[in-house]
Amino acid sequence: MAKKDASARASATSYDVARRAGVSQSAVSRCFRPGASVAPATRARIMAVAGELGYQPNAIAQQLITRRSNMVAVVISNLTNLYYPEVLAEISQRLSARDIRVLLFALQTESDVDAVLDQIWRYRVDGAIVAARLSTGQLRQFAVRQVPLVLYNRIGEEEPVASVCFDSTGGARQLVAGLVEARHCHFGIIAGPEDSYVGEERVRAATDELRSHGFEPLLVRGQFDYAGGDRGLRQLMLMSDSKLEAVICANDLMAIGAIDCARHAFSIAVPERLSVVGFDGVGPATWASYQVTTVRQPVRRMAEAAIEMLLERIERPDLPPERRLFGGQLLPGSSARLGPA
Amino acid sequence: MAKKDASARASATSYDVARRAGVSQSAVSRCFRPGASVAPATRARIMAVAGELGYQPNAIAQQLITRRSNMVAVVISNLTNLYYPEVLAEISQRLSARDIRVLLFALQTESDVDAVLDQIWRYRVDGAIVAARLSTGQLRQFAVRQVPLVLYNRIGEEEPVASVCFDSTGGARQLVAGLVEARHCHFGIIAGPEDSYVGEERVRAATDELRSHGFEPLLVRGQFDYAGGDRGLRQLMLMSDSKLEAVICANDLMAIGAIDCARHAFSIAVPERLSVVGFDGVGPATWASYQVTTVRQPVRRMAEAAIEMLLERIERPDLPPERRLFGGQLLPGSSARLGPA
Repeated sequence: MAKKDASARASATSYDVARRAGVSQSAVSRCFRPGASVAPATRARIMAVAGELGYQPNAIAQQLITRRSNMVAVVISNLTNLYYPEVLAEISQRLSARDIRVLLFALQTESDVDAVLDQIWRYRVDGAIVAARLSTGQLRQFAVRQVPLVLYNRIGEEEPVASVCFDSTGGARQLVAGLVEARHCHFGIIAGPEDSYVGEERVRAATDELRSHGFEPLLVRGQFDYAGGDRGLRQLMLMSDSKLEAVICANDLMAIGAIDCARHAFSIAVPERLSVVGFDGVGPATWASYQVTTVRQPVRRMAEAAIEMLLERIERPDLPPERRLFGGQLLPGSSARLGPA
Repeated sequence: MAKKDASARASATSYDVARRAGVSQSAVSRCFRPGASVAPATRARIMAVAGELGYQPNAIAQQLITRRSNMVAVVISNLTNLYYPEVLAEISQRLSARDIRVLLFALQTESDVDAVLDQIWRYRVDGAIVAARLSTGQLRQFAVRQVPLVLYNRIGEEEPVASVCFDSTGGARQLVAGLVEARHCHFGIIAGPEDSYVGEERVRAATDELRSHGFEPLLVRGQFDYAGGDRGLRQLMLMSDSKLEAVICANDLMAIGAIDCARHAFSIAVPERLSVVGFDGVGPATWASYQVTTVRQPVRRMAEAAIEMLLERIERPDLPPERRLFGGQLLPGSSARLGPA
């Protein structure tokens, strides 16, 4: 058995399959090319012979013929941030169901993008889904090299480009309106790193909304993780002379860090004495110990939209840019007192 | 600028670069082939010209020449399980630093492997790191097709194969010994799905160790997630007539679900009235609300070892199988009472 496979590997070509099945080599080729048409009976015969001979089409050689690699680059940062693994799992399973592979680029920080672009060009991917900040120059390179691109949770700021976004602004407004309604007066914001598009958008929206109600929030920054929330809360407590009443965190993980810090380091009851809110609606936000008041991103719908937009653009590179903006769902949780806004 | 790049894309070949740099085409090729030697001055001249002309080697065409794709398949299940994203981030960043790309296969359940093997053969990857259960027949296919393979956290049960494993057995013994020492008498185990190699190994080790002390644990099963731990604890409480004193969970996420369930659904103090332990040492296990008593896997060292073993086998396919077994570190946490074992 093993021996037969080994010799098959060395020798079985599409020509061998064609000869044995009594069809042309191009029929065998078509049989293994996604979307190509072959009569059902012919396909059945070819597949049976391919199975017998252990024939496997060479996807790479195929690419040189079809100019399709059936690979899509997915550029993602912060795999350890709890939100992105969920996005990646969705994208990868949905592409896989369409027989397309994910060539993964996991960045340590958003600004590492330059290093991976080079690789993207070299692998001749069919397209890319990028969840990292791209400069205008970098965006133009995709256009020049004709690599279809969909941005995930960011937009082309000067260069219009297809994108799928979460409406952080709407979410921030809802959260702030609820907090103001519940008569909080001393606000703090724990923001993410300045190079994060999503983080900055949330901070800007929350700040604008607070100012529109006449409040000026204290602002601190940290990484998008548990420790970032913990440290952020400690700083805010110092800066506010412990007058802090509500904290808006740039994501759920920071909110969880801030909640634990309030309860365990300062013995402050959440939400009775301090309200804490986040963004995303990741799994741990729903755990009984936290039940973070947050705005849930519709990850599945967003992943599906990103893939649809990309596949359309692979078929028709001339499609104009489009931006799809998904509203979030307020999950009231129990980490904040919100008014009936 | 854009125009220049566009025309460069259409026309600049390695021959153009060679002519302009005054070197042979093969020197240009070598310059872009990982590991090939080129004199530093020549390399500098070639890279400068390549930059001017916007030349990019075609990685795919290169593969047909070098028979290397510089792609490694990584097969991973449960991306939403908190442990695997950490492993994937480590592997992907370490391979990336060596100029090797990850072709990602994310399985929804461990038994989906068959569907992805076909794809692995087609993409002619240089090798594969697999963190999913493979049958003996599937393992043999890797050998027959000469695709170097390293298993992550599982072993070839009948077919010897290179693998990197965490010593769950040693970890389980330490945890159980500590619990027995602290005079717990009524034990429950919340196991993972039966098709998980790691899960079963942990359950077997914990059960054996408990029996060696004369205890027979109650056993329930669930998914490796928060809900699995929550439901598991409810079942154990029913089965034990609420006499339960210690619960061993197959991973930290289940332990967190069980802790929250004990505290919030049954008002049972953890660890005072119920000890809960887990495995892995994932981020949330260290959060102040949980501080799970667990055994930490040395993820970084294990990822590095898997990559080293794979790269060695890509260079020298005849290397004999090797199994590297990494001991874990007991993190005492505060979710369990452990004796001074």
